[in-house]
Amino acid sequence: MTLLVVGSVAYDTIATPSQRQEDEFGGSATFFSLSSSYFSPVSVVAVVGEDFAEKDMKILNDHGIDTSGIETAVGKTFRWSGVYSSDNLGFRKTLDTQLNVFAEFSPKLNPSHKTIPHLFLANIEPNLQHNILQQMSERPNLVALDTMNFWIDGNKDALTNVIKNVDIVFMDEGEAKSFSMQTSLRKAAESIITLGPKAVVIKKGENGVLVNTSTMTFTSPAFPVDNLVDPTGAGDSFAGGFIGYLAATTDFSDRGFRRAAVVGTVMGSFAVESFGTERIASLSNKEINQRFRALSTFTQFEQIPEQESLPSTHKT
Amino acid sequence: MTLLVVGSVAYDTIATPSQRQEDEFGGSATFFSLSSSYFSPVSVVAVVGEDFAEKDMKILNDHGIDTSGIETAVGKTFRWSGVYSSDNLGFRKTLDTQLNVFAEFSPKLNPSHKTIPHLFLANIEPNLQHNILQQMSERPNLVALDTMNFWIDGNKDALTNVIKNVDIVFMDEGEAKSFSMQTSLRKAAESIITLGPKAVVIKKGENGVLVNTSTMTFTSPAFPVDNLVDPTGAGDSFAGGFIGYLAATTDFSDRGFRRAAVVGTVMGSFAVESFGTERIASLSNKEINQRFRALSTFTQFEQIPEQESLPSTHKT
Repeated sequence: MTLLVVGSVAYDTIATPSQRQEDEFGGSATFFSLSSSYFSPVSVVAVVGEDFAEKDMKILNDHGIDTSGIETAVGKTFRWSGVYSSDNLGFRKTLDTQLNVFAEFSPKLNPSHKTIPHLFLANIEPNLQHNILQQMSERPNLVALDTMNFWIDGNKDALTNVIKNVDIVFMDEGEAKSFSMQTSLRKAAESIITLGPKAVVIKKGENGVLVNTSTMTFTSPAFPVDNLVDPTGAGDSFAGGFIGYLAATTDFSDRGFRRAAVVGTVMGSFAVESFGTERIASLSNKEINQRFRALSTFTQFEQIPEQESLPSTHKT
Repeated sequence: MTLLVVGSVAYDTIATPSQRQEDEFGGSATFFSLSSSYFSPVSVVAVVGEDFAEKDMKILNDHGIDTSGIETAVGKTFRWSGVYSSDNLGFRKTLDTQLNVFAEFSPKLNPSHKTIPHLFLANIEPNLQHNILQQMSERPNLVALDTMNFWIDGNKDALTNVIKNVDIVFMDEGEAKSFSMQTSLRKAAESIITLGPKAVVIKKGENGVLVNTSTMTFTSPAFPVDNLVDPTGAGDSFAGGFIGYLAATTDFSDRGFRRAAVVGTVMGSFAVESFGTERIASLSNKEINQRFRALSTFTQFEQIPEQESLPSTHKT
C-alpha cells in the first residue's frame, strides 16, 4: 500500500430539499479511501461499531482498499445527521452527531501501516493526528491533514503543532480565515505556509479550489455538475483524488499540485451526484479521464501572445 | 463610437464591515462605460439630476466616453444605499433606493447613437430596454442585456420578450435559476439559449463566471484579489470588459467569448479594490494585460496527453 488514511467511517442521515436518506455509508475515511483508490493502493485506519454492515466493508474491499486497520468496537458506528439548505445546497446544518465508538478512537497502527510513504490525517482531533504521525516508523514522504472549525476554535494550539509537521493542509474558506485570522484567502494561505506546510488547499465547495505554495497560486472552478444530489463527502473525495494522484505520481512540484487539484475537483464532482458512496464507488477510468479533460476545455482560453496586448483605446 | 450603453448613473452609499462611504459615484452605466472604455469608444445614455457633480462627468469624459446622451433632469440623481455582510462581502442588502430623476427615465436616442453597432442594455425596466432596441436605426451587430430579480418577479413577460431579441444575456446565479425555473446553472443557460440568445453569461461574484453557448461551456474563477474593499459595480465592470472586448475585436465566436469572459473577470477584480470608481477609473493597459496573463497562470494545468491516462490502480 502506498497511501494511509486515518479518519472516520460513519452512517449519515441527510436531508436535501428534495429527499431524505437514512444511514447512508459515509465518513471522511470512507470517501477519501474510495476516491484515492482509483489512483493509489490505500489502507484505512478507522473504527466501526458492531452494527457496521458487511456490504459496506465489501464496497471498500471491492476497491482493493486494505481494511485491516478498521477496528470493530463494542457499540454503534459514528452517526451524523445534517440538512442542506434549499437554494444551492451550499450551506449545511448539523442536526445531530452521535460519536458512539468514535468517541474512544485512539488507533495503534499495525506494523505494516507504519511504513506507508503517504499519510492523510482526515478531520479528527489534532492531538490524535499528531499521535498517529509519531507512530510512523519514519516521517512519510508526504503528510496531509484536514481539519474543521471545531478544532480551530477549541484546540488551536494542538492543531498548530500538527500543522507545523505536515506538508499539505486542507481547509475550507471559513477555516482558513479563522485559523490564520486573515480576511483574504491568499494571505491566509501565506500565513499557514510560514508555519511549515508546502501547500495550503482551500476548498470552496461548489466554487472550486485555491491552492497556494510559496511559489504558486492555482485556482480551479468546480466541475459544473448537472445533477447535484448530495454534497456530503465532496471535500473528502476531493482530498482523496488530490492525495491519491500525488501518491501515485510522487510529483510534489507545483505542476503536480495543479494536476492533483484538478483530479480532486473531478472526484468531488462525482461524489455529489448521489447520496452516500453510490457514485464515488462506481466510477470507470474512462469517466475520470473524460472529466479531467473536460475541465481543461471548460477553463481554457487563448493567452495574449508575449509581444501583443489586448485591444486598447489609449496608449498607456 | 462603437459601443452604446443605456443604464443608470447613481450615487451610492455603501457600508462594508470596515467602512462607510456616502454618495460614491456609481450606477450600472457608469461602471460599464468606464470599464469598456479601455477597449472600445463608448457612448452613454442615462439621466442625472441637477446635483450631479461636474467632477464625475469629468471622470467619464477623461476616459473618452461620449456623454452627450446623459440628460440632466430637474430633481436629484438616483441614489442607492446598501450594506455588505461581514464574512466575505458576498451578500448585500439594499437599505434604500431613491429613484429620483431615474423614475421618469425614458430616453430618446440621438441620431448619432442610433447607428452604434454594439449595444448594452444595463439593468433597467424590460419594456424600456425593448423600446431602446426599437429606436436603433438597424439591428446592432451585438445586443447584450443585464437584468435583475425585480424584473424577473414583476415583469417576466416583457423581460422574456426582450431576451428573445438580444445576443447575450447577463444574469447572476439566482436570476438565471429563477428566470428559467431550473436548478442547475447549465440547464438554466440552455433554457435561456432556446429563447434566442447566442450566449448566457452567469455571474457568480467572487466565485467567477460561467459562459454558455450552444456549443461551449466556459468557466473562470474570479481573479484572486488581496484587497477586497467594495463589491459595488463589479458585475457592471465585468460586463463592460466583456462587451468592450467584443466590440473592439468583433470576435463573436466561442473563442472570443472565452477571452471576453477573462477580460470581464479582470475588470471586475479591479472594480472591487476601491469604493466608487476610483480604481476602475485609473487603470493602465499594463495592469490590465498583466492581470489577464496572470489569470492564465492561476488556472493553467497540464492536460493529459491524448494517448495517456491518469495513473490508475485498475484496468477499466
